[in-house]
Amino acid sequence: MEQAVKTEECRRDVETGHKLTGEIPEVVRRLAASCGTSDCFDHVSPVPIPSRESVVEIIQSVRRILFPGYFTQTKIDLLNLEYYLGQEVTTLFQQLSTQIVWSIRHDCFRYEQACSQCSETGQEKALQFIQSLPEIRSVLATDIRAAYEGDPASYGFDEIIFSYPGLFSVTVYRMAHRLYELEVPLLPRIMTEYAHSQTGIDIHPGAEIGESFFIDHGTGVVIGETTRIGNRVRLYQGVTLGALSLPREAGQLLRAKKRHPTIEDEVIIYSGATILGGDTVIGARSIIGGNVWLTESVPPDTKVMLKTPELVFIGHRTGDGHG
Amino acid sequence: MEQAVKTEECRRDVETGHKLTGEIPEVVRRLAASCGTSDCFDHVSPVPIPSRESVVEIIQSVRRILFPGYFTQTKIDLLNLEYYLGQEVTTLFQQLSTQIVWSIRHDCFRYEQACSQCSETGQEKALQFIQSLPEIRSVLATDIRAAYEGDPASYGFDEIIFSYPGLFSVTVYRMAHRLYELEVPLLPRIMTEYAHSQTGIDIHPGAEIGESFFIDHGTGVVIGETTRIGNRVRLYQGVTLGALSLPREAGQLLRAKKRHPTIEDEVIIYSGATILGGDTVIGARSIIGGNVWLTESVPPDTKVMLKTPELVFIGHRTGDGHG
Amino acid sequence: MEQAVKTEECRRDVETGHKLTGEIPEVVRRLAASCGTSDCFDHVSPVPIPSRESVVEIIQSVRRILFPGYFTQTKIDLLNLEYYLGQEVTTLFQQLSTQIVWSIRHDCFRYEQACSQCSETGQEKALQFIQSLPEIRSVLATDIRAAYEGDPASYGFDEIIFSYPGLFSVTVYRMAHRLYELEVPLLPRIMTEYAHSQTGIDIHPGAEIGESFFIDHGTGVVIGETTRIGNRVRLYQGVTLGALSLPREAGQLLRAKKRHPTIEDEVIIYSGATILGGDTVIGARSIIGGNVWLTESVPPDTKVMLKTPELVFIGHRTGDGHG
Repeated sequence: MEQAVKTEECRRDVETGHKLTGEIPEVVRRLAASCGTSDCFDHVSPVPIPSRESVVEIIQSVRRILFPGYFTQTKIDLLNLEYYLGQEVTTLFQQLSTQIVWSIRHDCFRYEQACSQCSETGQEKALQFIQSLPEIRSVLATDIRAAYEGDPASYGFDEIIFSYPGLFSVTVYRMAHRLYELEVPLLPRIMTEYAHSQTGIDIHPGAEIGESFFIDHGTGVVIGETTRIGNRVRLYQGVTLGALSLPREAGQLLRAKKRHPTIEDEVIIYSGATILGGDTVIGARSIIGGNVWLTESVPPDTKVMLKTPELVFIGHRTGDGHG
Repeated sequence: MEQAVKTEECRRDVETGHKLTGEIPEVVRRLAASCGTSDCFDHVSPVPIPSRESVVEIIQSVRRILFPGYFTQTKIDLLNLEYYLGQEVTTLFQQLSTQIVWSIRHDCFRYEQACSQCSETGQEKALQFIQSLPEIRSVLATDIRAAYEGDPASYGFDEIIFSYPGLFSVTVYRMAHRLYELEVPLLPRIMTEYAHSQTGIDIHPGAEIGESFFIDHGTGVVIGETTRIGNRVRLYQGVTLGALSLPREAGQLLRAKKRHPTIEDEVIIYSGATILGGDTVIGARSIIGGNVWLTESVPPDTKVMLKTPELVFIGHRTGDGHG
Repeated sequence: MEQAVKTEECRRDVETGHKLTGEIPEVVRRLAASCGTSDCFDHVSPVPIPSRESVVEIIQSVRRILFPGYFTQTKIDLLNLEYYLGQEVTTLFQQLSTQIVWSIRHDCFRYEQACSQCSETGQEKALQFIQSLPEIRSVLATDIRAAYEGDPASYGFDEIIFSYPGLFSVTVYRMAHRLYELEVPLLPRIMTEYAHSQTGIDIHPGAEIGESFFIDHGTGVVIGETTRIGNRVRLYQGVTLGALSLPREAGQLLRAKKRHPTIEDEVIIYSGATILGGDTVIGARSIIGGNVWLTESVPPDTKVMLKTPELVFIGHRTGDGHG
């Protein structure tokens, strides 16, 4: 009997399957028809596009080169170090060249520009990026030291390199910013958005950030495209360095203008503070307290805090014998 | 000598290993014994369960269908577009059917309901979902245009589609919401929580959201289950559209009631603002400033801002010759 | 003709490639030279290091053991449950032993301590961890019930276990805290930072947290190293339990002191609230309102809220006939 039920169920299943898959071609036709209309964003073209997976591999390769031995199970010692680096850098050059060439070609195709030298330009930019790696490494060394000094919970440099999201996001930002300077399209933002998805820290590749930079905890931090940050600055979670609110129509006019603040050397900004506007300058060595909302400049050596807000205390269970 | 030390160390190691693994069966016994008691949540049953990995594959498949050519290295041109879509949609139908059937069966099993037609129902819902894809695509096209218009840092539609977390989370929400409307259990929330883990944007699949919706940056955004959002609304990072605080005991009574606010057309809500309560309505075209905390309605065409909080400025290093 | 252009382009490409790769050895030399200087953090040594990938596998293995049947497609029933657990626990023991031994060895190597018994110690700690699993499971059962009771949007325990980021982060924290108690270096923080990257919830493994703990939504939550949290406490997104601001120089002196607050039983803390300082105690059953900033203690049974901030309402489009 049970067997009969199972067989019946199975037969109905197959029939349903057949009936329903018969409906699929009609949906496919509608989907294909909407391509090329304003109802659909498609990328139907013979030009290959940059791949997020490759960008993530590039980030990991750069980290292995910048911090040799930390992110690989390969045994590295002083004897094989140069071979190890040689192999990693060569692979990186090939992979990065491909992605840069594709990004440039994609842009040419999109904006109908000539692309006679996309390939050479792409390879040259990849080399220029790689030639910057020693410099990026030495700036990151200052960032790591700043993390150790700024965080009493840190037990050592290794812990910072292995696990701190602030260092990860700043590492990716420093790569992406170099590619942004080299005017590589698309890749820099894909990189920083990958770091954003891993850390909750959203740094636009266009921002300019000095050495010994430390972001603690970090979730919710936003640093806008035209922000300028000096040396030895420290931020906590939830800090926004953003643009002032815009009238609905003005958005497009503001592209490429300085819309985000300037933070001078040795400033500390505590959690949840929001600093907005392209003319806003936070002077050197100033301290911005938690949750402060600032749209105007602050002179150097100043401490800005919210006036302690009035709190309402209500004894909500007094006298009920609880506890 | 060193060899002797090594051998000794190795011998001790093996002995320790043997001694310690001898303790494992006792732990396994205790772990097995606690299954079926209130000390353990287990899912010991012959019914297969929905798989997070498959749900992630479904999300990626839907994105490839909605935005052809963006998330694949396959070369797509107008000649092979329909074949490409046909293949993707067929695979999606099979994978989604399986997961929906499993979700429905799982629920029947959990709540001891009859499941005579789980399989047919599941396949029908999968087809209904797929038939909604053209409509989801055209709503997403309005979201992409809204992102481009709302963000002066955006350089083009491609960058938005490749890398904006706001668009990713809204894409996943629009799929999940359709499955929620089709009363598919479990899958919708697994989908939106995946997007939450990738973006920091937490949209409940039950929320109702109109077209041309844009979330900028997005980390920390929370949009509750019974929220209603009109057309052309823009949100920034850290915005909460939530429920009012509940007495500890009332939680269960509130299920399925409208507990979250209504946001009418063309409202802008700046970073960190919190709007709470099922009766709270933000009227059309209103602007809610950063960090505002609202538990009551706002009429249309209104701007609500925090009264500039008093800031305390202290010259914390004046006259010490620093700098 | 076109063919000729292509060939020419191809020839130039290859030449560029040759020319540019000729520059790579010089960069490699500079990168290798900076290793061992203060410009570079490297880990050039024959000692293997803990691997993030393995740590993620350990987390997944522990979840499969704690919640049998939820995170695997293997069919588990009461008959094979003990075999299933036996196999999982044995594999976990081996993998965890290896990672703990590597972490301890790594620390010995870094701080030039003797490591005569690293291997035995590591295996013993792995066993002690595994022996704690039944207890961790029963505490997590209280956390799951607290989530169900605290969230009117939850439809059942399965949804919580499959998809709630709060439960995921607390599960990982409870593992990591046990390893922290066992004084395992590096691994606990790698674990909690993995959970942080998945959920936006940053719990230091050193924090002490009682049973029936629930974090709703969770993005942006920070719980510092020396925080103490009682039983039946509930937190919402964006809550910080942190340290008071430090003078720039004092960071190192504060290591290992109690710098973070104490939260007693049954406290509720709403979204965006910040509570700072090692002497700050929030008394039992107190409720802390959204966005409150607290640096002093609160007695039991107290409700603390921001005094409703003055809002400025501006009719920004009144009379323009819009809408």
